Amino acid sequence: MAKVLMKGNEAIAESAIRAGGLCYFCYPLTPQSEVAEYLARRMPEVGGAYLQAESEVAVSNMLYGAAGAGARAWTTSSSPGISLMMEALSYIAAAELPAVVVNIVRTGPGLGGILPSQGDYNQAVKSGGHGDYRCLVLAPSSVQEAADMMPLAFDRADRYRNPVIVVGDGMIGQMMEPVEFKQWDFPPLPAKDWATTGCKGRKPNVVNSLFLDPKAEEQVNRRLGAKYAQMKREEVRFEEYRTERAYRVLLVAYGTTARVCKTAIQRLAQENVEVALLRPTTLFPFPEERLFELSRAAEFVMSVEMSMGQMLDDVRLAVGRDKPVHFFGRQGGIVPSPEEVADAVKSHLDGRGAGA
Amino acid sequence: MAKVLMKGNEAIAESAIRAGGLCYFCYPLTPQSEVAEYLARRMPEVGGAYLQAESEVAVSNMLYGAAGAGARAWTTSSSPGISLMMEALSYIAAAELPAVVVNIVRTGPGLGGILPSQGDYNQAVKSGGHGDYRCLVLAPSSVQEAADMMPLAFDRADRYRNPVIVVGDGMIGQMMEPVEFKQWDFPPLPAKDWATTGCKGRKPNVVNSLFLDPKAEEQVNRRLGAKYAQMKREEVRFEEYRTERAYRVLLVAYGTTARVCKTAIQRLAQENVEVALLRPTTLFPFPEERLFELSRAAEFVMSVEMSMGQMLDDVRLAVGRDKPVHFFGRQGGIVPSPEEVADAVKSHLDGRGAGA
Amino acid sequence: MAKVLMKGNEAIAESAIRAGGLCYFCYPLTPQSEVAEYLARRMPEVGGAYLQAESEVAVSNMLYGAAGAGARAWTTSSSPGISLMMEALSYIAAAELPAVVVNIVRTGPGLGGILPSQGDYNQAVKSGGHGDYRCLVLAPSSVQEAADMMPLAFDRADRYRNPVIVVGDGMIGQMMEPVEFKQWDFPPLPAKDWATTGCKGRKPNVVNSLFLDPKAEEQVNRRLGAKYAQMKREEVRFEEYRTERAYRVLLVAYGTTARVCKTAIQRLAQENVEVALLRPTTLFPFPEERLFELSRAAEFVMSVEMSMGQMLDDVRLAVGRDKPVHFFGRQGGIVPSPEEVADAVKSHLDGRGAGA
Amino acid sequence: MAKVLMKGNEAIAESAIRAGGLCYFCYPLTPQSEVAEYLARRMPEVGGAYLQAESEVAVSNMLYGAAGAGARAWTTSSSPGISLMMEALSYIAAAELPAVVVNIVRTGPGLGGILPSQGDYNQAVKSGGHGDYRCLVLAPSSVQEAADMMPLAFDRADRYRNPVIVVGDGMIGQMMEPVEFKQWDFPPLPAKDWATTGCKGRKPNVVNSLFLDPKAEEQVNRRLGAKYAQMKREEVRFEEYRTERAYRVLLVAYGTTARVCKTAIQRLAQENVEVALLRPTTLFPFPEERLFELSRAAEFVMSVEMSMGQMLDDVRLAVGRDKPVHFFGRQGGIVPSPEEVADAVKSHLDGRGAGA
Repeated sequence: MAKVLMKGNEAIAESAIRAGGLCYFCYPLTPQSEVAEYLARRMPEVGGAYLQAESEVAVSNMLYGAAGAGARAWTTSSSPGISLMMEALSYIAAAELPAVVVNIVRTGPGLGGILPSQGDYNQAVKSGGHGDYRCLVLAPSSVQEAADMMPLAFDRADRYRNPVIVVGDGMIGQMMEPVEFKQWDFPPLPAKDWATTGCKGRKPNVVNSLFLDPKAEEQVNRRLGAKYAQMKREEVRFEEYRTERAYRVLLVAYGTTARVCKTAIQRLAQENVEVALLRPTTLFPFPEERLFELSRAAEFVMSVEMSMGQMLDDVRLAVGRDKPVHFFGRQGGIVPSPEEVADAVKSHLDGRGAGA
Repeated sequence: MAKVLMKGNEAIAESAIRAGGLCYFCYPLTPQSEVAEYLARRMPEVGGAYLQAESEVAVSNMLYGAAGAGARAWTTSSSPGISLMMEALSYIAAAELPAVVVNIVRTGPGLGGILPSQGDYNQAVKSGGHGDYRCLVLAPSSVQEAADMMPLAFDRADRYRNPVIVVGDGMIGQMMEPVEFKQWDFPPLPAKDWATTGCKGRKPNVVNSLFLDPKAEEQVNRRLGAKYAQMKREEVRFEEYRTERAYRVLLVAYGTTARVCKTAIQRLAQENVEVALLRPTTLFPFPEERLFELSRAAEFVMSVEMSMGQMLDDVRLAVGRDKPVHFFGRQGGIVPSPEEVADAVKSHLDGRGAGA
Repeated sequence: MAKVLMKGNEAIAESAIRAGGLCYFCYPLTPQSEVAEYLARRMPEVGGAYLQAESEVAVSNMLYGAAGAGARAWTTSSSPGISLMMEALSYIAAAELPAVVVNIVRTGPGLGGILPSQGDYNQAVKSGGHGDYRCLVLAPSSVQEAADMMPLAFDRADRYRNPVIVVGDGMIGQMMEPVEFKQWDFPPLPAKDWATTGCKGRKPNVVNSLFLDPKAEEQVNRRLGAKYAQMKREEVRFEEYRTERAYRVLLVAYGTTARVCKTAIQRLAQENVEVALLRPTTLFPFPEERLFELSRAAEFVMSVEMSMGQMLDDVRLAVGRDKPVHFFGRQGGIVPSPEEVADAVKSHLDGRGAGA
Repeated sequence: MAKVLMKGNEAIAESAIRAGGLCYFCYPLTPQSEVAEYLARRMPEVGGAYLQAESEVAVSNMLYGAAGAGARAWTTSSSPGISLMMEALSYIAAAELPAVVVNIVRTGPGLGGILPSQGDYNQAVKSGGHGDYRCLVLAPSSVQEAADMMPLAFDRADRYRNPVIVVGDGMIGQMMEPVEFKQWDFPPLPAKDWATTGCKGRKPNVVNSLFLDPKAEEQVNRRLGAKYAQMKREEVRFEEYRTERAYRVLLVAYGTTARVCKTAIQRLAQENVEVALLRPTTLFPFPEERLFELSRAAEFVMSVEMSMGQMLDDVRLAVGRDKPVHFFGRQGGIVPSPEEVADAVKSHLDGRGAGA
């Protein structure tokens, strides 16, 4: 198929439809409202369900219900809206249901602003809801990758029967890039024989997250735990940039910030400062072991984020205490410039350090 | 004052009143409902405000409103109810308002069960809401300590103008122990001249978390960041147990689990296996540096939790990669027994390892 | 088509589908929940939309939204649930949108009980919401008539662009009777060119009920008033029973109560007491003029209701002050027996009067 | 006490406080928001409870709860907000609890406009909620009368254990007039021994509106019915104007419209057209018998309303069919002028009739 020029938000919407994500619930909030707008028009054409609910709490419980009925259900929102879904996400994970949640992150906390941010890393990766659950977290850094990740998100949600979060930001949502909607070829999925589809003739299916017997509840926790361990073995994804040659510094960045880092690295290379990048494309599971390996060759590691430093802890955890881990970040919706990143790298090489 | 025998939930309620926590909002949920019951009776006696709202979302926004008006506002809930407060907690932190939230944690995820758990560590410590904010997190392990921590929570909330979370569990909430309500002597607090108390004659105060100008929003993020850095310097609290003598193993545990660990340590000592315990009483900030120091003398460190291992990452972060960090946990509301903990320690000493 | 034996609630559901009522919102409440159950199964088969919302307030606003988009949208509920829709019904009427609301009335006020009642007459007929609006109100007294009235309700809702209420009761909803789904042949309806269907190429349609300019708002009120005047001219419906012969007494009753009255009349006829019945099948507009005419020949008129006397005022209004108007009613879910009704008639003929 | 110049909304607020209405719930909506503003400042001064809830649905259920606990609980809102309270009002009446609801009516239906209206007559008088219940409905036509009616409303609510509605309009709410807060001397009220005040030592009180046994529910309906019959005997209130001399025409009007009618009557008198006015100050119970008596002397009766004609039916019901009943109204927030009213009177006297 030919490439078309699309906004990230629209590419996400179109790709989700092509992946069979035909059950969509939403509540408007900048900067993700174009997804809803696009789907308001497209869903009737493809026979899908589009529903704007009365709040994000309602959205998240509709997601729970539709997922339980076997639909490929999904939603998009932005940071404060996602916070309102924390209870339901925990329920969906506990009931082992598939669901896809796209967070086009805006700057926070609170109402914050409508500009891009990476300030919801902890919420997505450490699971902002209650109890022991995890979401698979995907982080695209281009419109094409955002489009590519939607079919993957739906497939893995179904395969693991677990919520999958796609973390974008206002930059990826708003910018236009050429995008191609590819054919995907995932292995067959098991039938959704657990879904509450109406039980004519068979035993009723029950969707539940209440287990009052502690032994049974512990079993649930351990079954979930085994699933997350499997994700850690099988779902780690990342991109490496300039790791095939010698480097003095290793940057770690995802999403929009990783694009900035690549430009910064190119500029530093012109100054003969060799820098490499590890770009996680899954935030959970985090490429912990690969990061450790790559960190060995570097003088220091630097996490670059549009936040006060959230992925930073996962970077430090991977690298250990024997190698310096620095941080460079901008906040408030300000995308760091390549110059700023390059300067931060150089200041640490000089031993001057750099403010975050 | 003489000691009285009280349930933990009641001690929390009474202590909060004595600390001036006279504005209380709630929604019933086991296992924290005794707090609400107690206060329904006591609040009218002390001229306080008691309000059972229509949901935890409403509760958390009332907390936001009352805090903005300068009240010592607080709530209690349990895990799923706390998840519904994530949006408002982020708003309260962003607007730099004081508020105290007590989470009597039950087992999750989802509806889970009503038995004790430590499965909301990440939510409390990594901040389950959106954006860059942190809560000071206190973790009592006895009824007395729960009572003691309420005045501290209110004081620190006011002092930092930031939400404080007290993480209990059903065990602490339900068990009866002798408790003494002490006199506290905190340094004077600044006047709440930012509160929206009605602006007769002065310039109106505005409580806000929306900052559309990215420079202004970045300033907010950095001001908050400076506050959390100050907490890390000044608010780290922990208890050490048997660290003054030589030990082969260092346990890390908080709350109910720490009590179990102490018994396990006593039993192991009778078998001449010397084990020490670091019990964080603040989960954020985490006693990272002290844990690192104490870990140096141990053959390995073991985090003991009623979860699948959440504090574990903070323990690993503190210890680094050069010293084994093991985990022992029970889930589903099952409190680990001292024997289980002791066995887990011995199995790692034997090199057999232990399942979690 | 052959007759099938069906519950009233199911006949309403099936008939609505056949009338194109493919957009259904609901919230469960006895004694109307079978409608929702039936449609949960049937809607997917016919490609319709079935949505159980989070409350009746949500239902009524979804109705408003779907109606505005041009759908044949409808809901069913029972008394307390209908009360929660009063605001939205006023909005729907003000915005001149079609919608069908079925109220399977239960006994009230408050939670009341789940047995049949006619206690919501005033709410339906006098318009329980705010402002000058009216709903066309249909009142079936058999399963067949309930089925027949659904296509009529949808047609008139579209034709008048106004909400239509179908007032049933638990008796009609729960009893099984043979029903035939007839072919209907209504005159063509105007195109819904006012609907917000996405405005590609045309001027956007606006659905609105806010008119801040008093002249414009007065115009709206008068346009609505003209519509209700037209209903009064063209939509009055009723059944007469034994009015073709001489009678001493005229009963007025609708729904289940009218069936009881017919049996009472038959028994009274065996005692040579001639009684006639006027059964309104539209409650708004009320058959005021016909009732006045029929009342001339009677010694007195008696309104028979499962309420404390609500239609009674409309009966008195029609009859005037020069002819006695009596009332007989049972409440609390008790369906009056034919004997009770006959006794009440005879006691008034005897001049003894009868308690209600 | 000396008179002070106050807005109607403020006079209502102040008078309610002096009457002990110390438990106030609200949600902002023009044109009644000054009541809330005033009370936000005053309630803390008098130790009362002021709570802005998350919606009018929440407000009305808080009213239910506070009334059940024995408080003098009240709220104010405007038309759409009042519609959202219909369910709870029915519950409050069914549970036989006192509550005062002030409706500063704005023009409708729907969002309508913010100007004065009398379009909620039916909702208030015919009881917009479900089931057989009635509210005592008071209708002031001046700021002084609005102030006077608040103590009466609270007294009667307590005395009858039934909701009382005070129907104002934007005109009365917004205009400033001199007002005196009088001392009231009502007979002693029975103790609220049914209130859920905490049952130390006594049998628990239960506040309930669910009666599944039809006999019990019928008893509830009849007990309520007896209460409303008592209101009809004892609570009918009205003012007569120029009924002591001969008149050709009788106007019926309440609230702001009645003031306009008085001016119109004065002007008509100068033209030697004698007209009298009956001004109901209770809308339920309606002064039906007095209206009938007064109508005997008139050539015709005319109902003057800021609506499409809602009180009109009660006027027609009282007058009967043997005397013409005309209607004059303005809508959309337009207050009729005395000239318009006078012209309408004269046109009917001329036999020309008048448009509404």
